[in-house]
Amino acid sequence: MTVEKMLVEYTNVFNDNVEKFVPDSSCEYGRVIEALKYSLLAGGKRLRPALVLEFCKLFGGEYAPAIPAAIAVEMIHTYSLIHDDLPCMDNDEMRRGKPSCHIAYGEDIALLAGDGLQPLAFAALAKLEIEPSKVISAVKVLADCCGVCGMVGGQVIDLESENKKIPLDTLVLLQKLKTGKLIEAAVVLGCIIGGATESEIELCKEYALNIGLAFQIRDDILDLIGDADVLGKPIGSDKDNEKNTFLSFMSIDEAENEVKKYTDKAKLALSSFGEKADCLINLADYLAYRNN
Amino acid sequence: MTVEKMLVEYTNVFNDNVEKFVPDSSCEYGRVIEALKYSLLAGGKRLRPALVLEFCKLFGGEYAPAIPAAIAVEMIHTYSLIHDDLPCMDNDEMRRGKPSCHIAYGEDIALLAGDGLQPLAFAALAKLEIEPSKVISAVKVLADCCGVCGMVGGQVIDLESENKKIPLDTLVLLQKLKTGKLIEAAVVLGCIIGGATESEIELCKEYALNIGLAFQIRDDILDLIGDADVLGKPIGSDKDNEKNTFLSFMSIDEAENEVKKYTDKAKLALSSFGEKADCLINLADYLAYRNN
Repeated sequence: MTVEKMLVEYTNVFNDNVEKFVPDSSCEYGRVIEALKYSLLAGGKRLRPALVLEFCKLFGGEYAPAIPAAIAVEMIHTYSLIHDDLPCMDNDEMRRGKPSCHIAYGEDIALLAGDGLQPLAFAALAKLEIEPSKVISAVKVLADCCGVCGMVGGQVIDLESENKKIPLDTLVLLQKLKTGKLIEAAVVLGCIIGGATESEIELCKEYALNIGLAFQIRDDILDLIGDADVLGKPIGSDKDNEKNTFLSFMSIDEAENEVKKYTDKAKLALSSFGEKADCLINLADYLAYRNN
Repeated sequence: MTVEKMLVEYTNVFNDNVEKFVPDSSCEYGRVIEALKYSLLAGGKRLRPALVLEFCKLFGGEYAPAIPAAIAVEMIHTYSLIHDDLPCMDNDEMRRGKPSCHIAYGEDIALLAGDGLQPLAFAALAKLEIEPSKVISAVKVLADCCGVCGMVGGQVIDLESENKKIPLDTLVLLQKLKTGKLIEAAVVLGCIIGGATESEIELCKEYALNIGLAFQIRDDILDLIGDADVLGKPIGSDKDNEKNTFLSFMSIDEAENEVKKYTDKAKLALSSFGEKADCLINLADYLAYRNN
């Protein structure tokens, strides 16, 4: 299957199932449910759900048991975007071509929508129909990856790096935590549900780490030299916002080499799984060499 | 044991154990960990941890297995206070006699401290050393009680009721959700860990619901006629903020009767458990007839 087909298929799986994990909004507090659905259903690549489902299939032969986890991870991703867009954070008024959640629903409801998505994610994990001890592992993985030593920690480094020059090491740590940890959570949840062994999970974490870094460096390159029409957003915003990017430390050619280096490492990590992992190997290339 | 002694004992248990569930702050993103500890360790009655521990003891004979859950519930309570105090919510600059988290650490870090407390709470539950299927039940209970159909839903009704007259039914629903659901979570987590049966849990939920309502009505009475020095905060703030309170619907005498009615119901719910429940029965009176 091509990567494009896989992403479409798993996006459909997400869309067909997500409403089962979101309470009905016809109640006194329905506005917060509408707000979180507004953001959760706003589209996007659905990369994280695809990773959960495809890694589950790699080890378990089918993706269906991992559906609650795929939805949980996307809920966490969505909450982080809603809170990131708030005025006290990045103050972004647009997200995926639509007004941000707080523009559409007000800051207070947007804050609560993000707050409400977190427990919905853990409630979704509690619905996994797998061995109970594995459900507990899943809760632990998601909690650790999205918490203060994971995604939230990355956001803190990002905030504290604003308008100041940071070393490359710190930028790498920032990205490993801010975007990398939730990608890791997606991969590891798929592995756990599919029945991977500890050593298999370690290889898959290596894949997650490296596609995450390659993805981010490509993001930085596209922000500098991408086509604004293809990207759907203006280029040069990192420079305008004085963001630390990989291109503060290297030329475009060097950055292209870094993308290739991390992508090759990611692909190598899955090489022992044979052709069952082809789609994930192609996904690494797809993310690394995309133009939007 | 007197209620006061019980609360002191369980506060000590909380204080002695909480740091085990909070990561070390000597790292690049340590500021968010300092911020969440600032709020988590700021004191308070520790009513919710006490409920978790005492209900576990009621059914299991000892409180120790419930310690991770006691800490989890207080983490959720603390995150809700941090986010409630933010400028886009209640905009409160003081909390428990200290500057609010966002005054001490900035709005962005306070937002992330709240965001980071939620996964720490679920990670704490994942550490419970009880039958795995019970851990999953615990995750489900906490997620449901603190989520959009629980505490967050109550906060939404509260926001949407501001500066407008709401029916008494809506006020009761608001309080059942906003403060009641986390009290219910505390009680039910203790029950699950202690090994209560489904029908025992139902009785304990009845207790939780009724002490929550009695507690809130007493709060409203104290805000109107309490002693500011004993309360540690000015009185009359509900009226100044045009808040809907139980005293918008009834006289003080009638409200006192409501407190007694709910407290009696709470005590009746535990009557079948004999003298083992004496401390919890006394706690209902303690909360209902307190002066701060």
